[in-house]
Amino acid sequence: MAKLRIAMLAPISWRVPPRHYGPWEWVTSLLTEGLVARGVDVTLFATGDSETAAKLRAVCPHPYSEDPKLDPKVWECLHISEVFEHADEFDLIHNHFDFLPLSYSRLVRTPLLTTIHGFSSPKILPVYRKYNHHAHYVAISNADRNPDLDYIATIYHGIPIADYPFCDDPDDYLLFLGRIHPDKGTHEAIKVAQHAGMPLVIAGIVQDKKYFQEQVAPYVNGVQIRYIGPVGMPEKGRLLGHARALLHMINFDEPFGLSVVEAMAAGTPVIAIDRGSMSELIRDGETGFLVANSEDAVESMRGIDGIDRRKCRTWVEKHFTQARMVEDYLKVYKMIMKEEGKHG
Amino acid sequence: MAKLRIAMLAPISWRVPPRHYGPWEWVTSLLTEGLVARGVDVTLFATGDSETAAKLRAVCPHPYSEDPKLDPKVWECLHISEVFEHADEFDLIHNHFDFLPLSYSRLVRTPLLTTIHGFSSPKILPVYRKYNHHAHYVAISNADRNPDLDYIATIYHGIPIADYPFCDDPDDYLLFLGRIHPDKGTHEAIKVAQHAGMPLVIAGIVQDKKYFQEQVAPYVNGVQIRYIGPVGMPEKGRLLGHARALLHMINFDEPFGLSVVEAMAAGTPVIAIDRGSMSELIRDGETGFLVANSEDAVESMRGIDGIDRRKCRTWVEKHFTQARMVEDYLKVYKMIMKEEGKHG
Repeated sequence: MAKLRIAMLAPISWRVPPRHYGPWEWVTSLLTEGLVARGVDVTLFATGDSETAAKLRAVCPHPYSEDPKLDPKVWECLHISEVFEHADEFDLIHNHFDFLPLSYSRLVRTPLLTTIHGFSSPKILPVYRKYNHHAHYVAISNADRNPDLDYIATIYHGIPIADYPFCDDPDDYLLFLGRIHPDKGTHEAIKVAQHAGMPLVIAGIVQDKKYFQEQVAPYVNGVQIRYIGPVGMPEKGRLLGHARALLHMINFDEPFGLSVVEAMAAGTPVIAIDRGSMSELIRDGETGFLVANSEDAVESMRGIDGIDRRKCRTWVEKHFTQARMVEDYLKVYKMIMKEEGKHG
Repeated sequence: MAKLRIAMLAPISWRVPPRHYGPWEWVTSLLTEGLVARGVDVTLFATGDSETAAKLRAVCPHPYSEDPKLDPKVWECLHISEVFEHADEFDLIHNHFDFLPLSYSRLVRTPLLTTIHGFSSPKILPVYRKYNHHAHYVAISNADRNPDLDYIATIYHGIPIADYPFCDDPDDYLLFLGRIHPDKGTHEAIKVAQHAGMPLVIAGIVQDKKYFQEQVAPYVNGVQIRYIGPVGMPEKGRLLGHARALLHMINFDEPFGLSVVEAMAAGTPVIAIDRGSMSELIRDGETGFLVANSEDAVESMRGIDGIDRRKCRTWVEKHFTQARMVEDYLKVYKMIMKEEGKHG
């Protein structure tokens, strides 16, 4: 089989890889670099300031979330149309850009694979339903599968585990890592830390300013509750590895939790509300605890030292590495090529 | 030449024709019905509740501006992709839906004509620039032509003039007709009426609630200043015809002013701020007055009885009828067919 030519369509809200926040862009980057390392011919369609070992093709100079002069709708359609106008140069277009690219897909011959990174609202389902029998969908967890849609596979995200130093001798703090937003339960993490009588470090961008000011900032005192803003590698790796536990008190059905996997990679167990994909990411009692509410989370803290931190690491090595993710996508690419060969 | 098959792509913010507000949808309707009456084979892509003598093709059941359950971005892309997925059934796609359809146009063989109904922001220009040499653009006034773009023609909007009864014996009130928004100068119209010592009737939807509450409502007293909400035909025709003058104190470079043409059709002169397309729509001193500011507008009121109302009507009959608009578009369609024939 000739070398596979993949057009990788990234979002343009952030750079690839993102400077701070940007999980979709991050996963796109991890997959792209992993594929290039495996010898796949990847062209990355992303912002002009993106960094990649693949061929970079950009129409949008930099992320629209970093420049109010860029109208998102304008640059989205210019970015997406660029891929489809060059569709015949590729064997497959792999879309990480939500639903809009689907609406161009019937106008070209190149097959389209879409990783559904989550449904921002049930209002977007009509597009996924329309293209259900035309496009190919990958779910990022079984929990995120919508019963109306057909999926070619569930592929969990994977991280570059070598970047995460394993730590068997944690310090005495709990960690919140993620955007500051009610969905992510920053406030609940504070309550749990207070009741458990342990320090909490909060790291991440403030996505909801009002929530931060009213529900988070009043508790931040620089001692028991600290807020340190967004953190990148290698600081993030140290911060994760030295935590006693990651508190993941989500208030929504999270389709995947990258920080959950990152914590376990560093040896840190996760206490998470049992919603969305959490039961697929965490082995209850072995790599953390799945809990129903804040009271249960406080209660579970008693068992935290019973968790074997090495097991957390092993669990991620087995199921959530970048290498495994790349393998899984390659399999799906080959399935689609085979299927297209039949029809074509 | 075989019967021309036109796909008419309407916006879906409102029904075609709109119930109240919706100038783009209204013009699309006037053109569609005029073409059908001339024997053209038109398929109207619009909301499902639209009314037309053309073939109606709808994916969006009703206007998204009337239903918060409909995500505009979702239904826009489903609506637009529907046209392009059936492009080979048409000789021409005529787009009234702003810039997004342009980004699909290179993926099909059918030529695309876009009537640019105005630029909401200079931020949208990159899309028009990219497709400048691929798509065909119609300007709705010379004032609205952007120097970076090439246009196949300027085609002024036209109205069904028979629906507007001519009135040579107006009552003693001034009229504001349009959406209540700072751009439209509702507040300035009130000031002019007060200084001229004449009653003012305000008709239109409230588009900017804060502006209405702070700059309009405090002056509404039901006697000298009256607000009557949106009006449709035939009430609108009577209201226009019986006004002494229409006050069009715009604060932006308006690309076209349908109410300006409607007023003159009914015999009513227009006092307008000389911005945007106004000098193309109004003959200064003959069908109204082009003024620089509110003081000049008050001053110009002295000459209003010197305007021959019959001349206002004749001016519209000559330049701004639906029939003339239909003719102009047919000419453009034929130009494009001829050009495509050369290339094809």
